[in-house]
Amino acid sequence: MSGKPIVPLIQYEDADDAVRAVYDDIMAFRKIDWINNFWKVLAHDPALLKRTWESVREVMAPGALDPLTKELIYIAVSATNGCEYCTYSHTAAARGKGMSEAQLMELLAVVGMANETNRLANGLRPPVDVQFEPAG
Amino acid sequence: MSGKPIVPLIQYEDADDAVRAVYDDIMAFRKIDWINNFWKVLAHDPALLKRTWESVREVMAPGALDPLTKELIYIAVSATNGCEYCTYSHTAAARGKGMSEAQLMELLAVVGMANETNRLANGLRPPVDVQFEPAG
Amino acid sequence: MSGKPIVPLIQYEDADDAVRAVYDDIMAFRKIDWINNFWKVLAHDPALLKRTWESVREVMAPGALDPLTKELIYIAVSATNGCEYCTYSHTAAARGKGMSEAQLMELLAVVGMANETNRLANGLRPPVDVQFEPAG
Amino acid sequence: MSGKPIVPLIQYEDADDAVRAVYDDIMAFRKIDWINNFWKVLAHDPALLKRTWESVREVMAPGALDPLTKELIYIAVSATNGCEYCTYSHTAAARGKGMSEAQLMELLAVVGMANETNRLANGLRPPVDVQFEPAG
Amino acid sequence: MSGKPIVPLIQYEDADDAVRAVYDDIMAFRKIDWINNFWKVLAHDPALLKRTWESVREVMAPGALDPLTKELIYIAVSATNGCEYCTYSHTAAARGKGMSEAQLMELLAVVGMANETNRLANGLRPPVDVQFEPAG
Amino acid sequence: MSGKPIVPLIQYEDADDAVRAVYDDIMAFRKIDWINNFWKVLAHDPALLKRTWESVREVMAPGALDPLTKELIYIAVSATNGCEYCTYSHTAAARGKGMSEAQLMELLAVVGMANETNRLANGLRPPVDVQFEPAG
Repeated sequence: MSGKPIVPLIQYEDADDAVRAVYDDIMAFRKIDWINNFWKVLAHDPALLKRTWESVREVMAPGALDPLTKELIYIAVSATNGCEYCTYSHTAAARGKGMSEAQLMELLAVVGMANETNRLANGLRPPVDVQFEPAG
Repeated sequence: MSGKPIVPLIQYEDADDAVRAVYDDIMAFRKIDWINNFWKVLAHDPALLKRTWESVREVMAPGALDPLTKELIYIAVSATNGCEYCTYSHTAAARGKGMSEAQLMELLAVVGMANETNRLANGLRPPVDVQFEPAG
Repeated sequence: MSGKPIVPLIQYEDADDAVRAVYDDIMAFRKIDWINNFWKVLAHDPALLKRTWESVREVMAPGALDPLTKELIYIAVSATNGCEYCTYSHTAAARGKGMSEAQLMELLAVVGMANETNRLANGLRPPVDVQFEPAG
Repeated sequence: MSGKPIVPLIQYEDADDAVRAVYDDIMAFRKIDWINNFWKVLAHDPALLKRTWESVREVMAPGALDPLTKELIYIAVSATNGCEYCTYSHTAAARGKGMSEAQLMELLAVVGMANETNRLANGLRPPVDVQFEPAG
Repeated sequence: MSGKPIVPLIQYEDADDAVRAVYDDIMAFRKIDWINNFWKVLAHDPALLKRTWESVREVMAPGALDPLTKELIYIAVSATNGCEYCTYSHTAAARGKGMSEAQLMELLAVVGMANETNRLANGLRPPVDVQFEPAG
Repeated sequence: MSGKPIVPLIQYEDADDAVRAVYDDIMAFRKIDWINNFWKVLAHDPALLKRTWESVREVMAPGALDPLTKELIYIAVSATNGCEYCTYSHTAAARGKGMSEAQLMELLAVVGMANETNRLANGLRPPVDVQFEPAG
């Protein structure tokens, strides 16, 4: 274990204009006055920072799915992949959007079960039922 | 690619009483008259079949999260893991519970984004922000 | 890295009756006088705690495979997935069941090799040989 | 789905001497008269073919763990990773070494459970108990 | 196995203007006269289609790394994750950019080795050496 | 989190002759005077240590791909799998071989994008285009 990031965190005061513009947009959009470390490492590549932030902002916006459901999905993927940073940050985000402890626990129960049955299917290789074939 | 399952499908008419009891419960609970192939391979171990079915039934029941949200989470995990059978079967299940095409596409957009940012975090290792530390 | 769990550990003295009943069963079954942290986080959802414990107890019991072999398999999966907690806890469990250092090292050699050849097969996509097709 | 390998299969009669030497060793060692497709794609890089075969032969040999246990571990990893070719080939190999259907089913039950609890731990992040800390 | 996509392919002639604009850009940028199936399923969500295409176009452009190296990295990830479609499509793309058979085989040798040593490290948990700590 | 390795580090002065021979070869080959912790845990199985080192030395040697490209691929796999030790050690190795910060950031941008589109393909299951079918 190393506590140090692979590249140094770029703080607001040390950032160039392109990075500051993204930092400003993050804070304005989220109505907060700080930037989390994920963006401070991405800032080493301003184009990557900008593209990732704009994609996240667009993908996580309300649409056919509500923002809390989207955060639950993000946690599901992060727990499946074992991403520590993402688990902490998206659990915090989901709580900020109203996720209850009971919802978190049920979410992880589904995630656990899906990871289990995925491997039972992988190991036993049942053919896809014709009833599950998509139409069209 | 092989179309054959690792163990033969156990059809209802060839199943013993322990397996039939589970098959009957699946059909009664789901109000359908057929059994999908996942259970027909698990049936080679009646205890595994029974435990898995009862766990799935309990985990996927309405609770703090509604059944459609749980199916979306199941798809998110299955797509992350690349489980083909699970992707077809749970997409079909979600559609049966009312998932629209727009919801499916947004779900996968979140899944894709989460898989992307999980790896950006894995590769750059930002420390978890104190603001994300759980309370207590 | 954050040392804090996502939900607080529920200690025996703070647990309700449903949780204490599972804690008691874990300690009685394992003939120990403490509860490891995995169960103390699951305890936030007593139904999940109970179901997971009962499933683990049933799955890890002696059967067609002996308990040590089952622990080796658990380590193999945990190392493949990169689950830190699971690697420490199941390596400790396997040692408690008699796993030698030589067995651990050989286990990991197989795990490493399987992860390697899995990707050679994934990248080169050889068709499954007819000789490997399951019978029936 | 495509049935074609990424690189053509190199058959014995078309192989150069370096490849034939490995093919001959595989057949002699396994006391069989055919080569499975995994090696026929690796043969495009004779050094990779030779190194992989020699490593597999060494790793899978009897030692502190018996060959059947090693095949079970190989299946556990392959099902966890979802490698189709590896699942078919190593299940066939395990059966050839005496794996019963009951052993296969119990193996997959453990694999499923481990994949489930790995994600519960990933999502809830319990700290490693001091009792699980390795000695030394 | 099912040969059918989860959502129908949207052909050019059936696409609306937003989708056609992306299809046109893909063909113009790549100097080809057809659209591969990946985009035809994404087209069910024109915003996802557009964002994904623009991100891919930007990420895969020449920069500090050349386009062929980027395709090799894409194959490395796809083989690690076991994504069949991505393996075929990006191997074809890499060949179109000049990847030789020898380069493909060496690439996969590295991918296999990395997947192996990743799990040896996951299973044995060596601490990160101070010599590997990033500066700054 | 535990800072302790699963097996103790075997230091040079405590190593037997077989282990010292590998340690000596690592230091001579890399022109350094220290051994990183990965090898010090593998040393509990001298055959595994030797085989792994010799494979790594062979696989990472210049060939159809240059050594820096191979390190980039190693990082891509390690970030995809979330292997912390491997990410730190191979990022350090790549920097030692001349990787610039801009190259690292572009590498991770590709890794992120590939992980994203892998899941879009896994979730939507487009058929492999005939144009991507390998020849032969």
